[in-house]
Amino acid sequence: MAVTPLICPSILASDFSRLGEEVRALEAAGADWVHVDVMDGHFVPNITLGPDIMKSLRPHTSLPFDVHLMVAPVDPWLEAFREAGADILSVHPESGPHVHRTLGRIRQLGAKAGLVFNPGTPLSILEEVVDLVDLVLIMSVNPGFGGQKFIDSSLRKIGAARAILDRAGSAAHLQVDGGVTSANAAACVAAGADALVAGSFVFKGDYAANIAALKAAPDAA
Amino acid sequence: MAVTPLICPSILASDFSRLGEEVRALEAAGADWVHVDVMDGHFVPNITLGPDIMKSLRPHTSLPFDVHLMVAPVDPWLEAFREAGADILSVHPESGPHVHRTLGRIRQLGAKAGLVFNPGTPLSILEEVVDLVDLVLIMSVNPGFGGQKFIDSSLRKIGAARAILDRAGSAAHLQVDGGVTSANAAACVAAGADALVAGSFVFKGDYAANIAALKAAPDAA
Amino acid sequence: MAVTPLICPSILASDFSRLGEEVRALEAAGADWVHVDVMDGHFVPNITLGPDIMKSLRPHTSLPFDVHLMVAPVDPWLEAFREAGADILSVHPESGPHVHRTLGRIRQLGAKAGLVFNPGTPLSILEEVVDLVDLVLIMSVNPGFGGQKFIDSSLRKIGAARAILDRAGSAAHLQVDGGVTSANAAACVAAGADALVAGSFVFKGDYAANIAALKAAPDAA
Amino acid sequence: MAVTPLICPSILASDFSRLGEEVRALEAAGADWVHVDVMDGHFVPNITLGPDIMKSLRPHTSLPFDVHLMVAPVDPWLEAFREAGADILSVHPESGPHVHRTLGRIRQLGAKAGLVFNPGTPLSILEEVVDLVDLVLIMSVNPGFGGQKFIDSSLRKIGAARAILDRAGSAAHLQVDGGVTSANAAACVAAGADALVAGSFVFKGDYAANIAALKAAPDAA
Amino acid sequence: MAVTPLICPSILASDFSRLGEEVRALEAAGADWVHVDVMDGHFVPNITLGPDIMKSLRPHTSLPFDVHLMVAPVDPWLEAFREAGADILSVHPESGPHVHRTLGRIRQLGAKAGLVFNPGTPLSILEEVVDLVDLVLIMSVNPGFGGQKFIDSSLRKIGAARAILDRAGSAAHLQVDGGVTSANAAACVAAGADALVAGSFVFKGDYAANIAALKAAPDAA
Amino acid sequence: MAVTPLICPSILASDFSRLGEEVRALEAAGADWVHVDVMDGHFVPNITLGPDIMKSLRPHTSLPFDVHLMVAPVDPWLEAFREAGADILSVHPESGPHVHRTLGRIRQLGAKAGLVFNPGTPLSILEEVVDLVDLVLIMSVNPGFGGQKFIDSSLRKIGAARAILDRAGSAAHLQVDGGVTSANAAACVAAGADALVAGSFVFKGDYAANIAALKAAPDAA
Repeated sequence: MAVTPLICPSILASDFSRLGEEVRALEAAGADWVHVDVMDGHFVPNITLGPDIMKSLRPHTSLPFDVHLMVAPVDPWLEAFREAGADILSVHPESGPHVHRTLGRIRQLGAKAGLVFNPGTPLSILEEVVDLVDLVLIMSVNPGFGGQKFIDSSLRKIGAARAILDRAGSAAHLQVDGGVTSANAAACVAAGADALVAGSFVFKGDYAANIAALKAAPDAA
Repeated sequence: MAVTPLICPSILASDFSRLGEEVRALEAAGADWVHVDVMDGHFVPNITLGPDIMKSLRPHTSLPFDVHLMVAPVDPWLEAFREAGADILSVHPESGPHVHRTLGRIRQLGAKAGLVFNPGTPLSILEEVVDLVDLVLIMSVNPGFGGQKFIDSSLRKIGAARAILDRAGSAAHLQVDGGVTSANAAACVAAGADALVAGSFVFKGDYAANIAALKAAPDAA
Repeated sequence: MAVTPLICPSILASDFSRLGEEVRALEAAGADWVHVDVMDGHFVPNITLGPDIMKSLRPHTSLPFDVHLMVAPVDPWLEAFREAGADILSVHPESGPHVHRTLGRIRQLGAKAGLVFNPGTPLSILEEVVDLVDLVLIMSVNPGFGGQKFIDSSLRKIGAARAILDRAGSAAHLQVDGGVTSANAAACVAAGADALVAGSFVFKGDYAANIAALKAAPDAA
Repeated sequence: MAVTPLICPSILASDFSRLGEEVRALEAAGADWVHVDVMDGHFVPNITLGPDIMKSLRPHTSLPFDVHLMVAPVDPWLEAFREAGADILSVHPESGPHVHRTLGRIRQLGAKAGLVFNPGTPLSILEEVVDLVDLVLIMSVNPGFGGQKFIDSSLRKIGAARAILDRAGSAAHLQVDGGVTSANAAACVAAGADALVAGSFVFKGDYAANIAALKAAPDAA
Repeated sequence: MAVTPLICPSILASDFSRLGEEVRALEAAGADWVHVDVMDGHFVPNITLGPDIMKSLRPHTSLPFDVHLMVAPVDPWLEAFREAGADILSVHPESGPHVHRTLGRIRQLGAKAGLVFNPGTPLSILEEVVDLVDLVLIMSVNPGFGGQKFIDSSLRKIGAARAILDRAGSAAHLQVDGGVTSANAAACVAAGADALVAGSFVFKGDYAANIAALKAAPDAA
Repeated sequence: MAVTPLICPSILASDFSRLGEEVRALEAAGADWVHVDVMDGHFVPNITLGPDIMKSLRPHTSLPFDVHLMVAPVDPWLEAFREAGADILSVHPESGPHVHRTLGRIRQLGAKAGLVFNPGTPLSILEEVVDLVDLVLIMSVNPGFGGQKFIDSSLRKIGAARAILDRAGSAAHLQVDGGVTSANAAACVAAGADALVAGSFVFKGDYAANIAALKAAPDAA
């Protein structure tokens, strides 16, 4: 039996006009984490939302907030997002020259530390900080740009990240984000992922059914 | 009888978990414009929200969206916010060296163009572009920082801006933002303002009563 | 009899594939200065040309090279353009916080120092450095953007700059750039300008006739 | 009898290899304040010293530390320099778009707030924040560059700043920095200054005699 | 028989005062591509030329324009250079954190996508995006600085890039730029290159003979 | 018998109020190099000292000045620190995209060139420039942040760097910096280091004894 992946719906694909309701619905539908995409318009060419909006959602769910910081420089923002309720804070190695310190600082704040890899970013830096990460996020689209499909070569990259984590004896989660659907979820898990971010796939139609489909995909494959 | 000011509640002070409902409530309560504070974490040390969140609110109200862009550089963002439903786009002169062009571009996009003055920014630039502005926004607190009170010297600045607009024969609105309450609304209007941004004053308690109190303040004074 | 303005054709409007020939033709046609627009893609959203291209033109004419640096920060570039043959180096006050030093440095290098005002930039800084400028350039369009017409309010600004220069007893040139044609040249000169940058107006048709038309415009008015 | 100016020797001109001794000697020689020039290599093209070096000097004198921050952005540094012992923190308006907030923040930290004007910077911003400044510093050379003489037009600027302060009823100090000697000290004071920064003039020869000469200059004139 | 390399003369070494003529001469002399070096003075410490100059050369030749963008950030410039006639657009991985997206965007625009490696930049990123590149450019000098010789260790790097391309089954071109002459062309080709950028070697003397010498070098070796 | 490491006390841990005396004491106590940590407040969140302070120390010792530049961009600073007396200049690969050129330029200036690796930075770039480095510095804490302990995984990284240097036949020094004491010095040397930066370990108590303890540690182990 295959690993059942954690499902982490991204509120970027939800209805922003009723975020509290959306978050409650995700919890009711069986989501594991709430994935929050923070963009500052500098690291990526889009602005989404900041700590105050996320904080307003904290009372609506007991699910962990899994926050992907597409922000540069990222160091000045860690406290604010932690105080706003983040349980996991994931950062890009391109967000500053002190990624080892950034990850350590996230843990000092009591959160889990994640490291995110853009489709073009090599994994070499993961080997340097593998003992500091609780999550590795492999982007299967380019973050911050619309209308993209799952990049197939991401599967190879998931596998390579899995190998690095296993070799280091790390229990860190391995997450995938971008174009994930029930059609590629099994392949992601087979390659080594154990957490799937999903956007429009979850929010179109019945949330519970969609989440269940993602969870079941690996076994169905 | 004094001028009755336009009341422009800032959604920054609303409940972000149900923004659509908040915006509908503002319209029902008699608000004139919906004031949207966009912060990118670079021009000011806070991130709030971007065009997609604003766009999700567009179906919920027919009120104009009055968007204050605390973003630098600001030129790359004009189209996105216009497409997301902005009716007024207000920019800071510090957001780039081409403010004349920025204001002209906003009008080309079919929106009204606003120019915002920080508490420490002289009005001299207003004289250079007075024929390109549909709105002047005088900040009566420093944008992007929490816990501030209305800066009293703003009244003098409102008066000075009013004089420049009148001298130029401009019909531009003169708006005030920061710590505005029924206690200082009359003074703002007396100094020359005709549009008031209000945050927590509107959202604590009965929206309609609060908006009415702001509108009535000038006559009551 | 009105002042006969210096005519400064901008090579930005010439045929870049044969710049040497164009520059020689300008000299033969009676141009006074060769105006060179340098854009770095950061101060303005266009890249044009750098010192090496300008240097290649130096042997083709004895006319002064009047170089408008739309570059930020500008201080690191002064030497390179002076060595490449610039006679006048004009800078924007927005190109760095040390404009007094920048202008002084240009003179130390043996060139004439110019200060450029964007359409939205107040003249207040001119009063601070009036004894360091050999040229004041009033932009009558926004530099770096295409398809613009002469901004009529520039005439008022030319007049204000003329007043500052005269009050200070300055012999600095007062130049205008952007949409200048024989239709507005007289008004520019009447407002106080004595040097006109011209682009497409010069390069469409007979250069000598066009230059002569600009020179004659003030008297014809 | 003329005002006796405060004398503020800049440790930039002292022997950095024995700063504690230098600071003690300044106090013994009758200096009023110790002027500390902080440069970050970004706002100005030189790096001098940071908070830890200044802190090491705090035990060596009871004189106020008058700190000129040539740093951009400046807001993240206020706490560190205050904790390191600064009594006065002076900032440039070019160091960030929120100068009103910066000055207010300095006062919140319990220090005196200063505003510095480069030779090319107009005083217009002073009128906006005059009620927030405890010190105005007029630069009579361009900060961060070597080998400069006192800029004579600074006297006019000192006078203009004095007029703004007096008109506002401000008790703020008016300080001058750059090429100050006994030859121009009287003129500075006559123009309205009451605090003089001095560098090499103090540190060449007998510190006490040099300081006394600066203090006596206005009466001798 | 060795591969006959494509010869790509860089117009940076041509006579800028008659670029159209130079480009026509290159085509007549047997050049394969016209190499265009774009520098913005920020990614490298030189400014060369922008899209308008390149566009003016488009009518003068039917050779492909092979454009090396030494510009950061590079994403905003892709359209402009494509519209100006670029057939190949090559970018540095240091020009932004989204290189995968940048390469994909170049192909969307209908151009060939190139990736450039500075002498100090590891090839690891090439493995991440090998299926998106039509050209790999190995710099054999540091771009943007004058007076450099061919760096011998580039041969090893060419070989390593060749191995990555071959292993991936890529048909991408492998180009070398910097100090290439008939003396090292054979070694470059032997190491795996199939396209050579040449500057002064081509433009000193007889273009056709020089180009022929480069083409013949591998066989002569 | 183990290698006896070079001991390089960092003046960052000395008494800044009497730096000349401290430097003389280090030489008397048997230090090999004086390690100078330059921070600009941009590459790292601290400002320490610039070239003028270092220059004031040059007459106090004949020991080499081993300068770690935590400055970005770093290229404009090389000359100033060389002229101020630096014998070794070490730079971070994150300080600019032209590290090969930076290292070459340091050697052109007559200094030794060092390359510094943050805890999170992979060594892959070292392989590209191994023939240009005279020193490799492995950071065993994150530079610019206080209160850190020696990161144990640095030992593995020292070993990996040693392997690269040996494979390339390089005679470059391999230095460690951050939390080095007599308790871990032997492990550092055993892993391949031959130069140890030490801060508070040296300056607490008897300098000579502390330096001797570091030198002796490898043999004692």
